[in-house]
Amino acid sequence: MDDSKPKRVLSGIQPTGRPHWGNYFGAIRQYIDLQDANDGFYFIADLHALTTIRNPDELRDNVINVALDLLALGLDPEKATLFVQSDIPEVSELCWILLSGTPMGLLQRCVAYKEKVDKGLPADAGLFTYPVLQAADILAYDSELVPVGADQVQHIEVCRDIAGRFNHQFGDTFVMPKANVLDDSAKVPGTDGEKMSKSYDNTLPLFGEVKKIRKQIMRITTDSRPMEDAKEPEGDHLYQLFSLFADQTRREDMAAMYRRGGFGYGEVKKAIAEASEGYFDEARQRRADLEQNLDFVREVLAKGAERARSVAAEVLSRTQKAAGLK
Amino acid sequence: MDDSKPKRVLSGIQPTGRPHWGNYFGAIRQYIDLQDANDGFYFIADLHALTTIRNPDELRDNVINVALDLLALGLDPEKATLFVQSDIPEVSELCWILLSGTPMGLLQRCVAYKEKVDKGLPADAGLFTYPVLQAADILAYDSELVPVGADQVQHIEVCRDIAGRFNHQFGDTFVMPKANVLDDSAKVPGTDGEKMSKSYDNTLPLFGEVKKIRKQIMRITTDSRPMEDAKEPEGDHLYQLFSLFADQTRREDMAAMYRRGGFGYGEVKKAIAEASEGYFDEARQRRADLEQNLDFVREVLAKGAERARSVAAEVLSRTQKAAGLK
Repeated sequence: MDDSKPKRVLSGIQPTGRPHWGNYFGAIRQYIDLQDANDGFYFIADLHALTTIRNPDELRDNVINVALDLLALGLDPEKATLFVQSDIPEVSELCWILLSGTPMGLLQRCVAYKEKVDKGLPADAGLFTYPVLQAADILAYDSELVPVGADQVQHIEVCRDIAGRFNHQFGDTFVMPKANVLDDSAKVPGTDGEKMSKSYDNTLPLFGEVKKIRKQIMRITTDSRPMEDAKEPEGDHLYQLFSLFADQTRREDMAAMYRRGGFGYGEVKKAIAEASEGYFDEARQRRADLEQNLDFVREVLAKGAERARSVAAEVLSRTQKAAGLK
Repeated sequence: MDDSKPKRVLSGIQPTGRPHWGNYFGAIRQYIDLQDANDGFYFIADLHALTTIRNPDELRDNVINVALDLLALGLDPEKATLFVQSDIPEVSELCWILLSGTPMGLLQRCVAYKEKVDKGLPADAGLFTYPVLQAADILAYDSELVPVGADQVQHIEVCRDIAGRFNHQFGDTFVMPKANVLDDSAKVPGTDGEKMSKSYDNTLPLFGEVKKIRKQIMRITTDSRPMEDAKEPEGDHLYQLFSLFADQTRREDMAAMYRRGGFGYGEVKKAIAEASEGYFDEARQRRADLEQNLDFVREVLAKGAERARSVAAEVLSRTQKAAGLK
C-alpha cells in the first residue's frame, strides 16, 4: 500500500455510554484526525450494541448522543461519512454470507468473547459471532485502514482470515484491510490513579455538567506526602492528567513547581480543571448548539447512510455474484 | 389457533440437489397441498445452501431448478408466494437481531449441527447458527404453520424459544409459529430396499431421462425366492413402491398376484416404471414447458420476492422499533 495516498478508513463506535477522557486521548481524537488525509467512514455500531443494551430507549439515546459527541469533537461531515450501522442492510446480508464460511475454531480462539463472558455478559450467539459482523462492517466498504485499540487487533486478523478464505474460494472479492493500532502511550489516569476505564469506575466524562466534573477532579486520590516536599512530576497521575491539556511551557512550569515542593495537590487539581475546561470548551459549545439542532444531526446521518449504502451495495453485489447468489 | 382459518404457512426448500421420490411423497407433495386452504410462502433457501455449496454455478443452477421442480409439481403462483431467500434482505437483518439474543447453549444443544459435522461438513459458524437464520425466515413473515420433517422439529422449538425471549424482553413482536410435522408413513424404499435417501445413494429421481430412470428401476435389489412361490405383498419394497402410484383397484390386483405366486419381479418393476411415468407425466410435461419459458419463472420469483418483502419489511420495522434500532 502506498502510504501517501488517501485511504478508506473505517471506524465503528459503540453507543454504549458516555465517552471519557481516556476514550478521547486513546482513540476518538486519533481516528477523527484521520479524516483529514483520508476517506473516513465512521459508523455508530448499534447492531453491535444490541449484544449488551436491551433497553430500546437507552439505545436510541446513546446513538444520537454518539453522533453529537463525534460532531462536537470535530468529525466533519464535509470530510468524512458518519452513519448508523443498522441503516445499512447490506452489512447484515454480508454478515450471513461470511458466517457461512467462517470456521468455528476461528471464533472460538477469540479472546474478547471469553473475556466478556467472564465479566458477566450473557454468552449469546451475537457476542460469539461479533467478529463476523465486524468483518462485514469492514469489508462492506472496501476499507483499507481500521484504527483499533491493541485489544481489537485479533478481530482484524479474523477479518483478514475470513476475507482471505472467501477470495481464495470465490476469486478476488474483498479488499484486505490493515489494522492501524492506536497510540495508547498518552497516560490517562482515572480518579483513583489507575488507568482510566469504564470498568474501573474511575472515569472523567468529556461532556457533562462542568461543576460536577470539577468536583470529581477535586476528589482525585492523592498521596499524603507533606506539601513542602519536593516531588518528581514524571509518574505522578495529577501531573499526567495536567499534561494532556497543557502546552509545553505550562507543563515545564508545573514540573518545576513539583520539583521545588511547597504546593498543595488542590492547586494542581484546580489547574487540571481549568486546563481541561479550556481544552474542551469549543467542543462543549458545539455540542450544545447541535443539541438544539437535532434535525441537522439526523440529516448528517441520513446523508452518511446514503453514501455508505452506495458503496456497500456495490460490494454486496460483487460478493453475491461471486458466491452464486445472483 | 382456529384450525379452520387459512394460515400463513412457511416452507423453505434447500437448493442442494435434484428431488427424488422420497422427497416428493415425504414432503413436497404435502407442503404444496397446503397452498389450497392457506396463505403459503415457499422460499428457495439459497443462503442456507451456502453452508454446503461452494460452487457459484452449481448454486445458481440449483436455485432455478428448484423453482422449476416446484412449479412443475403444482405449486401455483396464483395461490402461493414463491421466492428466493437472498432476495429478502430483511431476513439477514432479522437474523443478526435474533443472534444477539440467542443463548449459545440453545444452539449447542441442536442435534442437526453435530450430525452434519459428524457426516463431514465443515464446522462453520453458518452451520452452527443455521437455526437462527431459520428462525428469521419463519418470523419474518408472521408464519403460523411450518411443515417440517421430524428431524427439524427441534429447530422450530429453537425458533419459538428465540421469539419468546424477544417478545418477553421487548414486548409482543413475533407471531409464535407451530410445527406441522409431515406425514412420513408412506413407505418409499430406495433401489436397495432401504429407506430412499440421498445419503444412502439409493434414490430414484422425480425428473430426468425416462429411459435412465427405467433402467434404475429394473436394477432394484430383490430376493431370490422362486417365481412360483406365493408371496406376502405387505412389507415387500417393490409392492410399496408400486402402491405409491397405483389406485386401490390396481393395488389389490397386484396384491392378489403376489399372494398367488407365479410371477417375476421384473413384471412388478415394469409395472412400477409404467405407473410412476404416468403419475409424473403431467409434471414432467409442465417442467419441459417451463424450461423453455425461464422468463416466466424469473417473473414468478420476482413477484414472489416483492410480496414477501412487503411482509418482511413490516415485521423488521416492528422488530427494530421494539429493540431501539429505529
